[in-house]
Amino acid sequence: TGDILMTSQLPGLANGMAWTEVGGKLLPVETAVFPGKGELVLTGSLGDVMKESARIALTLIKQRLSSLGLPEDSLQKQDLHVHVPEGAIPKDGPSAGITLTCAMISALSQKPLKQGIAMTGEITLTGRVLPVGGIKEKVLAAHRNHLSEIILPKQNDKDRDDLPQEVLRQLSIHLVETLDEVLSLVFP
Amino acid sequence: TGDILMTSQLPGLANGMAWTEVGGKLLPVETAVFPGKGELVLTGSLGDVMKESARIALTLIKQRLSSLGLPEDSLQKQDLHVHVPEGAIPKDGPSAGITLTCAMISALSQKPLKQGIAMTGEITLTGRVLPVGGIKEKVLAAHRNHLSEIILPKQNDKDRDDLPQEVLRQLSIHLVETLDEVLSLVFP
Amino acid sequence: TGDILMTSQLPGLANGMAWTEVGGKLLPVETAVFPGKGELVLTGSLGDVMKESARIALTLIKQRLSSLGLPEDSLQKQDLHVHVPEGAIPKDGPSAGITLTCAMISALSQKPLKQGIAMTGEITLTGRVLPVGGIKEKVLAAHRNHLSEIILPKQNDKDRDDLPQEVLRQLSIHLVETLDEVLSLVFP
Amino acid sequence: TGDILMTSQLPGLANGMAWTEVGGKLLPVETAVFPGKGELVLTGSLGDVMKESARIALTLIKQRLSSLGLPEDSLQKQDLHVHVPEGAIPKDGPSAGITLTCAMISALSQKPLKQGIAMTGEITLTGRVLPVGGIKEKVLAAHRNHLSEIILPKQNDKDRDDLPQEVLRQLSIHLVETLDEVLSLVFP
Amino acid sequence: TGDILMTSQLPGLANGMAWTEVGGKLLPVETAVFPGKGELVLTGSLGDVMKESARIALTLIKQRLSSLGLPEDSLQKQDLHVHVPEGAIPKDGPSAGITLTCAMISALSQKPLKQGIAMTGEITLTGRVLPVGGIKEKVLAAHRNHLSEIILPKQNDKDRDDLPQEVLRQLSIHLVETLDEVLSLVFP
Amino acid sequence: TGDILMTSQLPGLANGMAWTEVGGKLLPVETAVFPGKGELVLTGSLGDVMKESARIALTLIKQRLSSLGLPEDSLQKQDLHVHVPEGAIPKDGPSAGITLTCAMISALSQKPLKQGIAMTGEITLTGRVLPVGGIKEKVLAAHRNHLSEIILPKQNDKDRDDLPQEVLRQLSIHLVETLDEVLSLVFP
Ligand SMILES: [Ca+2]
Ligand SMILES: [Ca+2]
Ligand SMILES: [Ca+2]
Ligand SMILES: [Ca+2]
Ligand SMILES: [Ca+2]
Ligand SMILES: [Ca+2]
Ligand SMILES: [Ca+2]
Ligand SMILES: [Ca+2]
Ligand SMILES: [Ca+2]
Ligand SMILES: [Ca+2]
Ligand SMILES: [Ca+2]
Ligand SMILES: [Ca+2]
Repeated sequence: TGDILMTSQLPGLANGMAWTEVGGKLLPVETAVFPGKGELVLTGSLGDVMKESARIALTLIKQRLSSLGLPEDSLQKQDLHVHVPEGAIPKDGPSAGITLTCAMISALSQKPLKQGIAMTGEITLTGRVLPVGGIKEKVLAAHRNHLSEIILPKQNDKDRDDLPQEVLRQLSIHLVETLDEVLSLVFP
Repeated sequence: TGDILMTSQLPGLANGMAWTEVGGKLLPVETAVFPGKGELVLTGSLGDVMKESARIALTLIKQRLSSLGLPEDSLQKQDLHVHVPEGAIPKDGPSAGITLTCAMISALSQKPLKQGIAMTGEITLTGRVLPVGGIKEKVLAAHRNHLSEIILPKQNDKDRDDLPQEVLRQLSIHLVETLDEVLSLVFP
Repeated sequence: TGDILMTSQLPGLANGMAWTEVGGKLLPVETAVFPGKGELVLTGSLGDVMKESARIALTLIKQRLSSLGLPEDSLQKQDLHVHVPEGAIPKDGPSAGITLTCAMISALSQKPLKQGIAMTGEITLTGRVLPVGGIKEKVLAAHRNHLSEIILPKQNDKDRDDLPQEVLRQLSIHLVETLDEVLSLVFP
Repeated sequence: TGDILMTSQLPGLANGMAWTEVGGKLLPVETAVFPGKGELVLTGSLGDVMKESARIALTLIKQRLSSLGLPEDSLQKQDLHVHVPEGAIPKDGPSAGITLTCAMISALSQKPLKQGIAMTGEITLTGRVLPVGGIKEKVLAAHRNHLSEIILPKQNDKDRDDLPQEVLRQLSIHLVETLDEVLSLVFP
Repeated sequence: TGDILMTSQLPGLANGMAWTEVGGKLLPVETAVFPGKGELVLTGSLGDVMKESARIALTLIKQRLSSLGLPEDSLQKQDLHVHVPEGAIPKDGPSAGITLTCAMISALSQKPLKQGIAMTGEITLTGRVLPVGGIKEKVLAAHRNHLSEIILPKQNDKDRDDLPQEVLRQLSIHLVETLDEVLSLVFP
Repeated sequence: TGDILMTSQLPGLANGMAWTEVGGKLLPVETAVFPGKGELVLTGSLGDVMKESARIALTLIKQRLSSLGLPEDSLQKQDLHVHVPEGAIPKDGPSAGITLTCAMISALSQKPLKQGIAMTGEITLTGRVLPVGGIKEKVLAAHRNHLSEIILPKQNDKDRDDLPQEVLRQLSIHLVETLDEVLSLVFP
């Protein structure tokens, strides 16, 4: 099956990118929020490492509630449900870390992300963004789906020269080291 | 064993379609609702992906309670039990997503679905309907069981030309992109 | 070991029939009810499918409390324990569905089943009775144990001609499509 | 290691018998009761079937609280811990059913069992005692440990002729069909 | 790595002895107690049998609270954490039964054990001490670490003659049958 | 991927060192604290032994709350989340014991560790520091990352002579036997 692009401006959505054996692919993340008691529901055939990425995102948000302008009890009276289509395809790895975090913040704040952006990068518990693999294939997939802004980890800077010049000319690539830099790009 | 057709107008029932190695088959979904505390019970030898589809359906319903005309506490004071006969046959995959969602809404609202409809399609957390496999075999099974209306994902449009013209002539096929379109077809 | 026949008129007992590699066998189901908080305890080396059958029976009962003449809080202030002897023999499959349901209703209402009846049939969440396998061997086991009334799924009608005429002459076979028909036979 | 005989008159103890590849063996069951909230703790490397036997014993006791002279809240304000030495030896099977039941009743009532008795037999949820295997080896083990009274399931009657006459002469063998018969032998 | 000897007089410590393929080894048990709600935390790569030994120790303590001079609510308002270094080495078997029990009692009462003692022995739920294996290697390890008093199960009496006379001359070996005898040796 | 050095002075961070098949590596530990109910969340693909190390650290902290200047309810009204990047790399073993403990104390007290320190050592429940493997490779990794102070278990003293003299000259190595010694080094 082909790529799934999310062009809508609904809150809770963020576009990641995945590496697969047959090339790069968009990895849209969907997050829903509803009254509950702080549960985190994860669907989409996610592996353990990806589930842990979502758990890290949750803690990062809990620590930034006030700076994000969210009520202190945001995560006590609500549940978060994160889903990554397509449901039958197993997904794993840490590289959706910043995508998961952005999608979850968007759902909680009910603010959509800036459109046209795709991102990839492992997140750590202090908000650092670590490098990931498959940059070339991932960026080509974003380009193929007409996304024009790409957020990459700073330490992946060296992977840009694997991309064709004509692709690079049509893209705006942002290199980031921290979650805060990511957030100022997607919620400008 | 042969197909199980649900012709009754009981609330909580929806007809899905399954692909099997020996052809398509109806996949009826049964949902019961009773006083409880918000538990979701799943039976019918469902695999992980299908269980996750039911979990997605639950979140979609939680987010649409008011637009569905359901009381806000519908899912806090009641349990939902979803069963897919036949109990000994393992079932999996995301393609029952819209069927599960319709059956659960029907049980909660106590409104039966419009009769004579079969459906297949993966659901995502934003209510998009994604394409699925086995369209030809699934539609033939619905036709064989005298169901006259079929709901398919828009992206499966291209699979219609695999069906015999005389079958197509006897069917009304609806192509959908969102859950809202599905709901307006089954609860007209 | 041989068959275990339950001739007593204790509430909570129902005679199922099982197919085994060495012929049919009675499958007695025992149910106890005692003060608790709504737990369902299952013993007897039951497999996943058989455990799900018991879970379906529980939901069917919850939905029929008033028509069964049971107090609304029957399953909130009591636990149900279902056991299928012999404890070391693994048992699985959906064909004890109606037997489990009858035994559980009998325990809750403290009304014994009509004596001399054996039954087999899968149950669904809407109370339909689905066909099962091994009819010939099962009925011969019931006959060998001097049970005179047999409840079979309507769709197993065609399996009756596999039985010797002299056996059929000594039996009263009831073909059923719904749980309600079963209940009116065992609680006449 | 050799047999472990429990000659003390402490409440909570009962002597079962086990079959092993190198002959019969005593299977002492120890039960402790202490303030708690109704938990059943099982130790001694017990397999699933033996754990289910203990669960059946618990339900049988819950249903007989008043006839056993136990307070109605005996199992709500206390925990039961059943241990079967030796802790490193895996044990399984249903044949300790009546032994487990007697040991648990003894602990709850704080009445020791009559001394000098060994027993074996599967228990069902209606209190029936079903036949078990290894009778010859089990009884020889009890005899070797100078136990003089043996409780066996009625359906194991036929296994007595496998024992030497001189052993039989020194033993008093009781054949039982129900738990009530067992209880009147051990709590005379 | 070599032996770990606990010479400090901190409460919560007890020296067990383990048999390994390369000889005997000290098996120190550490227990901590802190405000909680009755949880038992077990670390040190313990196997199922050793975990059950700790569970047995817990029940034995619950039954002896008053004779041990401990408040009745000692185990309701506190958690116990038992750790057996070294954390990466898997440990299993029942022979640390009395060691675990002594360490846990010491932690709860905040009384250190008498110094210079090592012990080995399976414990049962009635406080009996059962024989264990590897006596020769275990005692040599204790001797090598300058421990002068050894507690062994009475039924291991016969294993003393496997030890060199000059080792035996330097040790004081206590043979015990019950937990009470153990406790009067370590808490004199 | 290369080493990840944490030079920031944020509380909750500590630098461990890991041995890998391709040489030593820094093992940064990140800890976050936020309002909760005493849960310990562990991410970073940690194995059972490493998870148990974190559990030991938690108990050690619970026992030292007052000496650490932490409120008595520090761990009842807050959750601790410990993460060890990089998330996709499985990590196990006990040698991060003191690193985990320091990171957790730093997060709870909101005091950063003294900068420039790396450490390795198993921790026990009484606060002893046990020797670990891979000292040479670990220290070289710390040196390569310009860390100047190294904390090692006292029993690893003998491993220092495996290091080049010129490396040793540039490092300040502290040999410790207890957690208290570690704490006075990192929180001077
Ligand atoms: Ca995994
Ligand atoms: Ca490059
Ligand atoms: Ca699966
Ligand atoms: Ca086509
Ligand atoms: Ca199974
Ligand atoms: Ca036929
Ligand atoms: Ca098992
Ligand atoms: Ca015989
Ligand atoms: Ca094990
Ligand atoms: Ca000897
Ligand atoms: Ca492991
Ligand atoms: Ca050396």
